[in-house]
Amino acid sequence: MVPQWIIEKKRDGAALAEGEIRAFIEGYTRGTIPDYQMAALAMAVFFRGMTRAELAVLTDAMMRSGTALETSRIPGVKADKHSTGGVGDKVSLILAPLAASCGVVVPMISGRGLGITGGTLDKLESIRGYRTDLAPDEFMAVLAECGCSIVGQTAAVAPADRKLYALRDVTGTVPSIPLIAASIMCKKLAEGIDALVLDVKWGRGAFMKTPEQARELARTMVEIGAGAGKAMSALITDMNQPLGRTAGNALEVAETLEALSGRGAPDLMRVTLALTAQMLVLTGRVPDTSAARPILQAQLGSGAARRRFLEMVARHGGDAEALASGAGLPRARLRREIRAPRAGTVSAVDAGRVGRACLALGAGRTRVEDAVDHAAGISGIVKIGERVDEGQPLAALHANDEGRLDEALRIIDGAFAIGEGEARPPELIVETVRPGNG
Amino acid sequence: MVPQWIIEKKRDGAALAEGEIRAFIEGYTRGTIPDYQMAALAMAVFFRGMTRAELAVLTDAMMRSGTALETSRIPGVKADKHSTGGVGDKVSLILAPLAASCGVVVPMISGRGLGITGGTLDKLESIRGYRTDLAPDEFMAVLAECGCSIVGQTAAVAPADRKLYALRDVTGTVPSIPLIAASIMCKKLAEGIDALVLDVKWGRGAFMKTPEQARELARTMVEIGAGAGKAMSALITDMNQPLGRTAGNALEVAETLEALSGRGAPDLMRVTLALTAQMLVLTGRVPDTSAARPILQAQLGSGAARRRFLEMVARHGGDAEALASGAGLPRARLRREIRAPRAGTVSAVDAGRVGRACLALGAGRTRVEDAVDHAAGISGIVKIGERVDEGQPLAALHANDEGRLDEALRIIDGAFAIGEGEARPPELIVETVRPGNG
Repeated sequence: MVPQWIIEKKRDGAALAEGEIRAFIEGYTRGTIPDYQMAALAMAVFFRGMTRAELAVLTDAMMRSGTALETSRIPGVKADKHSTGGVGDKVSLILAPLAASCGVVVPMISGRGLGITGGTLDKLESIRGYRTDLAPDEFMAVLAECGCSIVGQTAAVAPADRKLYALRDVTGTVPSIPLIAASIMCKKLAEGIDALVLDVKWGRGAFMKTPEQARELARTMVEIGAGAGKAMSALITDMNQPLGRTAGNALEVAETLEALSGRGAPDLMRVTLALTAQMLVLTGRVPDTSAARPILQAQLGSGAARRRFLEMVARHGGDAEALASGAGLPRARLRREIRAPRAGTVSAVDAGRVGRACLALGAGRTRVEDAVDHAAGISGIVKIGERVDEGQPLAALHANDEGRLDEALRIIDGAFAIGEGEARPPELIVETVRPGNG
Repeated sequence: MVPQWIIEKKRDGAALAEGEIRAFIEGYTRGTIPDYQMAALAMAVFFRGMTRAELAVLTDAMMRSGTALETSRIPGVKADKHSTGGVGDKVSLILAPLAASCGVVVPMISGRGLGITGGTLDKLESIRGYRTDLAPDEFMAVLAECGCSIVGQTAAVAPADRKLYALRDVTGTVPSIPLIAASIMCKKLAEGIDALVLDVKWGRGAFMKTPEQARELARTMVEIGAGAGKAMSALITDMNQPLGRTAGNALEVAETLEALSGRGAPDLMRVTLALTAQMLVLTGRVPDTSAARPILQAQLGSGAARRRFLEMVARHGGDAEALASGAGLPRARLRREIRAPRAGTVSAVDAGRVGRACLALGAGRTRVEDAVDHAAGISGIVKIGERVDEGQPLAALHANDEGRLDEALRIIDGAFAIGEGEARPPELIVETVRPGNG
């Protein structure tokens, strides 16, 4: 098996054989196939794509490059959710304990923020003491006792993906739908789950800039998962304006606690409940999503979901008591409001600008190795369709550095549009993608 | 200048700016841009191509990655010929001294054989004592005194090309016409020549499998050279049957001496004289190719070209005296003829099979690091259109190893086709490509 012959075959538009894909990924993981050959193959895949059969093998080979979690030891049906990332997307923090409180086991391996999209691990690490690097046994224990655990990817999970992702980042091969889909799905399949719901976002604050791109990615991932025997569905959701009212790590945890107490922003709750309902349907807890709604509302209303979140925090070493009493989260030294220049209706909130402003404030990373300021971010974000008076705050910026605050103010300028008359909020959930309906 | 942004720009089909190309090649030469980024860019170029303006800069940047030869110190007009390679192609050995005997200075940097195509340096090294690794001063001295010198590429000439060529070989990015053209032309431009004629071969024994591919490569290279101020032309020539009657290093030197004595095979002489005539036209020695023919025939007939060849050999340390007396070349221990199974007319001689049989005999390399058996090869090759009787030799195989001989016999089986009636020799020179007529 000569690596360049495999590259040439893909370059010339042929589908690779199972043995070729497996040999390439195994060789790359072991280091016998060098980065430059993988970079050439990735660029050929960018131009030529991959068939469903190729993608199933690629995803499986990347998953098998490491060890899968042995969640089968834990009784109960397991499910997870994955989001392609957005600004203000704290859905996982609400959904995981909410689904767990309904009897679904949620073994969630999450990521860190990069660019304008936030990362669930960064948000959790803003909680004093929360550890995202549990050993496998600790993770299993938390899962078994609490029903959900959100951790980071260990070196043992899909090392081929870890290596390939870093390579794609520097070789112009990130925006390839087959490679994106395989990267996401190999990690999710390694969780040993029965069902997976995907939140594929499109818009100014998302990686996919059109609903069509989002749909193609969603379909690709749903087919990979279905082919691997998982119950699958995907929601295409809007990420043109930020989700909820906050963006930035500690600020989003505070918003999560509000949401778990039944006081979440309507758009945040709509997306969160729709995704959690999908999980209940896919795992057979309810016959359809309409049956899921009252159950989920009850778990929020009774405080069961909130208690489950605080339990998970405590089992991860986080200071749940402080958190419950409104403390336990860092606060930024500086706060600056931006105000409406005139009265009217909010007609646009550019999630891309809000995300870049968050980055400038120190809430995110431009490079993997950057440190994050957990207290930085933006709160009190107005939503499309809301009426504002002249001088009313549109958002508040939080930072620990004057220079960063000034830069963020420059960036966020123009993110908010205020118009005359009515403004319809965007269609939040564009479509539901299920296996075979693509 | 972030390398991945340049890769992304090419990936998305835009033309790169001069500064971007220069920065990439400079970084790659210095090692600050790693192989995996160059591999990704090369694959993007394979799919997206390059504009004339991009190619001019790429070629210049690769040339400037090293030092150009200071041939301007030598008086007289300088010209060279480059062939894309074939089976039995000993044209350079005849053309260089022939052109030199007409007053053209020929500073020829040649290559080694790889795959089925032979290499001029390997042929010359079959001459006892011939050194292809002259120091720059020695090279200049030979050029000044003898008018021609054929040497190998030193590390100082176009190191970016040397590095990129090795990388392309293992990343499936060899068959990209812009990259092939830039690789050839950067080395030729480094020779400090005034004129260059290209022999772009197509057919079973050539890299380009159709006349159309050959034409595209020829046009691309002619434009690069013309853009750099060189007098340029290219001949598209047939390489479906081997050129001349021998293939293999020492055997081809012996055939060269025959040709220089006026007893060359008609196809070999036709191509050699056409290319040399182009050199005389491009350097202004004659007004047109028809005026060149009698001059070239006179230089061959008088023995002037042969003497020039022997002088070059001697100045390179080769045993010219032995060579002139029919010795000085290694002979293989084993010789086996293949014979016509029946009488008829030779209707095909597959240059690809003949080339692979030569490889099996030990005359060439499958990998750069392979050693070459200079005595191995094939002689007495019949030509398309020739009549043969049953049992008449079609070719003779020469080797130093029984196993190799047997393998070569298996490979060459079927290379010769013998038909009834007439068989027209192929159209040897398909087309002449000049700047602006593309």
